[in-house]
Amino acid sequence: MDALLEEIAAIVGDTHVLTGEAVTARAVDWMTGAPCQAAAIVRPADTAELAAVMRACHAAHQPVVTHGGLTGLVHGAEAGSDELVISLERMTAIEALDPVGATLTVQAGAPLQRVQEAAEQVGLQFALDLGARGSCTIGGNIATNAGGIRVIRYGMMRQQVLGLEAVLADGSVVSSMSHMLKNNAGYDLKQLFIGSEGTLGIVTRAVLRLHPPTTAVQTAMVACPSFAALTALLGHLGRSLGGSLAAFEAMWQSHFRLLTVDSDRHAPPLAPDAPYYAIVESLGSDPDSHAAQFAHALETALEQELISDAVLAQSDSQRQGLWAIREDIEGLIQGLAPLFTFDVSLPIAAMEGYVDRVEAAIRRDWPEGRVVTFGHLGDGNLHLSVGVGSDAPATRRAVEQHVYSPLAELGGSISAEHGVGIEKRDYLPLSRTREELALMRTLKHAMDPLGLLNRYKVLMDASG
Amino acid sequence: MDALLEEIAAIVGDTHVLTGEAVTARAVDWMTGAPCQAAAIVRPADTAELAAVMRACHAAHQPVVTHGGLTGLVHGAEAGSDELVISLERMTAIEALDPVGATLTVQAGAPLQRVQEAAEQVGLQFALDLGARGSCTIGGNIATNAGGIRVIRYGMMRQQVLGLEAVLADGSVVSSMSHMLKNNAGYDLKQLFIGSEGTLGIVTRAVLRLHPPTTAVQTAMVACPSFAALTALLGHLGRSLGGSLAAFEAMWQSHFRLLTVDSDRHAPPLAPDAPYYAIVESLGSDPDSHAAQFAHALETALEQELISDAVLAQSDSQRQGLWAIREDIEGLIQGLAPLFTFDVSLPIAAMEGYVDRVEAAIRRDWPEGRVVTFGHLGDGNLHLSVGVGSDAPATRRAVEQHVYSPLAELGGSISAEHGVGIEKRDYLPLSRTREELALMRTLKHAMDPLGLLNRYKVLMDASG
Repeated sequence: MDALLEEIAAIVGDTHVLTGEAVTARAVDWMTGAPCQAAAIVRPADTAELAAVMRACHAAHQPVVTHGGLTGLVHGAEAGSDELVISLERMTAIEALDPVGATLTVQAGAPLQRVQEAAEQVGLQFALDLGARGSCTIGGNIATNAGGIRVIRYGMMRQQVLGLEAVLADGSVVSSMSHMLKNNAGYDLKQLFIGSEGTLGIVTRAVLRLHPPTTAVQTAMVACPSFAALTALLGHLGRSLGGSLAAFEAMWQSHFRLLTVDSDRHAPPLAPDAPYYAIVESLGSDPDSHAAQFAHALETALEQELISDAVLAQSDSQRQGLWAIREDIEGLIQGLAPLFTFDVSLPIAAMEGYVDRVEAAIRRDWPEGRVVTFGHLGDGNLHLSVGVGSDAPATRRAVEQHVYSPLAELGGSISAEHGVGIEKRDYLPLSRTREELALMRTLKHAMDPLGLLNRYKVLMDASG
Repeated sequence: MDALLEEIAAIVGDTHVLTGEAVTARAVDWMTGAPCQAAAIVRPADTAELAAVMRACHAAHQPVVTHGGLTGLVHGAEAGSDELVISLERMTAIEALDPVGATLTVQAGAPLQRVQEAAEQVGLQFALDLGARGSCTIGGNIATNAGGIRVIRYGMMRQQVLGLEAVLADGSVVSSMSHMLKNNAGYDLKQLFIGSEGTLGIVTRAVLRLHPPTTAVQTAMVACPSFAALTALLGHLGRSLGGSLAAFEAMWQSHFRLLTVDSDRHAPPLAPDAPYYAIVESLGSDPDSHAAQFAHALETALEQELISDAVLAQSDSQRQGLWAIREDIEGLIQGLAPLFTFDVSLPIAAMEGYVDRVEAAIRRDWPEGRVVTFGHLGDGNLHLSVGVGSDAPATRRAVEQHVYSPLAELGGSISAEHGVGIEKRDYLPLSRTREELALMRTLKHAMDPLGLLNRYKVLMDASG
């Protein structure tokens, strides 16, 4: 290892190979604060340095773990003491911005929020948005195919990437920096690196798609009398708003009550006795006509009894107040701790029964257990938070069984947007067939035969 | 071959193995009418039969070519006399339609238009649309990642596919029939099959995403005084219409004149002396406010001199009249024959210079030569039609050089939406790097080591 680190120091410079306390001072998990265990942290300045580092690691059969903003939720950043961390923290440049083509070219270590702000400065928007925007990086967003709160309208990170560059396990650089919305000249190689959690290559740069800004925002919180009404409301708003619907965030009563009446963290904007609530948000351009259209859609929903009550945000601070309930992760932790959080997707029509089933199973084993549910309903994505009074590993596994097992027969997924990492790896066969897993291993083996990249993440066997 | 055909007949039934005149009676190219040369055409009824056929072919090292609607433009359907064609013409079922989840499950041989109509029947829309809708199949749309006329708004076929099932070269079935918008449980395997033109697997079924309908359509044709004005108009409409802009189809004067004043095929809706024209179309929900917004956006564009004139479609027949000019491929052929047609993409900012350069190069070699240009400007996609008085193969190669060569330095693509097939295979290195081509071969070799699937398409070497 020492000889390799010397070789790497000659590439990136001594000050960019961290060892000892400089490594363990860094947490690899923002929820637990667990320290980094890697043999060293390497900080290349650019693609050329990173490629040279990987060529050296490849020659030495040295496994590596890639670090971005460290905001992941599935332990994808964990590194063993025999592994090197490659951190993209110095590769943060916004290299180009083309307002005519509506593209932005960026190094993978740039934080999401900086990209959003750069787009705004030329009168455009970068459409991906999520709570960790200040810390998470574009490379991490790509590697995990990040989702967030505007997926109905703009899609996930995959849809925002026009081109990318990646360094492979052997240090070769695959540059697919297309700037065009349409490019069918051969296999779309970038898709391999999006969502594969750094196991097939290290994303170093990307060309991102920008969108026209949507300056007229309408936001409401509504109460729904039943799950059927909630899903009918989703369809109604989709039709009435002509595709400007940007968020449809459902909260089960359990979630709404926990963060309002049960905790005094937020004044309840609506009476807390409805079975379901939703934050609905629409993004348009012309403020007046968009406001009228949104109000009309809600009135019609009231008439059709899809909603029993609604509060429309009249100002940006009111809007933020509504979103604060939905995004109050701290309140969830405080109310349920110790808790386990889950991120699953399943057909919308099956959600009501699924949540009932999970709740019943939890209460059977832990009569005092609580299940709190919210999620991006329009995307088929639910976040369940489960508190059963213990966070022991055996308890976690028992709770995981209750949450994940029903998904197999429903055609659901154990990971909607958080990825697999280490945390969900052993449950992957619940969501994917034997043939799918075999094909994943075929790809991993073809692209990383030595098993050097983020080994034991996503797939158990580093290589075939 | 005879023993294999007997084995296959036992799987699919005698009547579904076509040989002799039943094969040559079928054209593999709708433009040339060239007859199919395959040893036989095999028509499986379902995935199980198709998988059994592929297992037999794999055991016999028998290469196959997959046929969908045969509307492709790059000779992807051509088959040698030592190859078998697998036609999906019997696999046309719409298997399920979920209005709540807004998904449609379909066999790959179903024509696009039937899927569009099925979605409409439940008050939703399938967003992909292109001229060949009546004949082209969903499987072909997936294999070629079809584009079409609504890409700015809804993306290409890739964005419409939630899940798919494919049969691999060895006959194994990879079923990734996810119904969710969000699914990050492991590698997104479907991306491998989308746009790889049948070289990595045969798509047999798919789960498609449906969208809310957009009932308010506004369409105009505008004249632009310069290319700078044309691109500024694209940005202006994007901002003014808040994402409802659905088409921005540019026509160079050469194209507009050829189909109007030069040919009498269409009455010119605007004076034919502007350097550029565009059809702009916006899809909204509320007819009155959407019409007002669209009219206002055009008025502002006039004030800002982004356009010099405009005609707004006042009825569906007027709308169709405007689109008829843009879609009059027959008029193009009649006006230029013999002609070569091209489908390229490049950064929008570089388009004006690129087209000037191609025109100058053509006129240098063929003083009477004509270049007619139109395209999906918002997608960075141009279609060039070039008539130089000959369609001899050597002439074709000379013209191809003029059209494709400048793309390399511009970061453009030799194929925006038509794919590569055989026609563009030898030009792929102009758009893709050595490392990209090597990675494509790595994938092909890993997934089809015997080189059985659509061999010599996209990549020259069937296998590594």
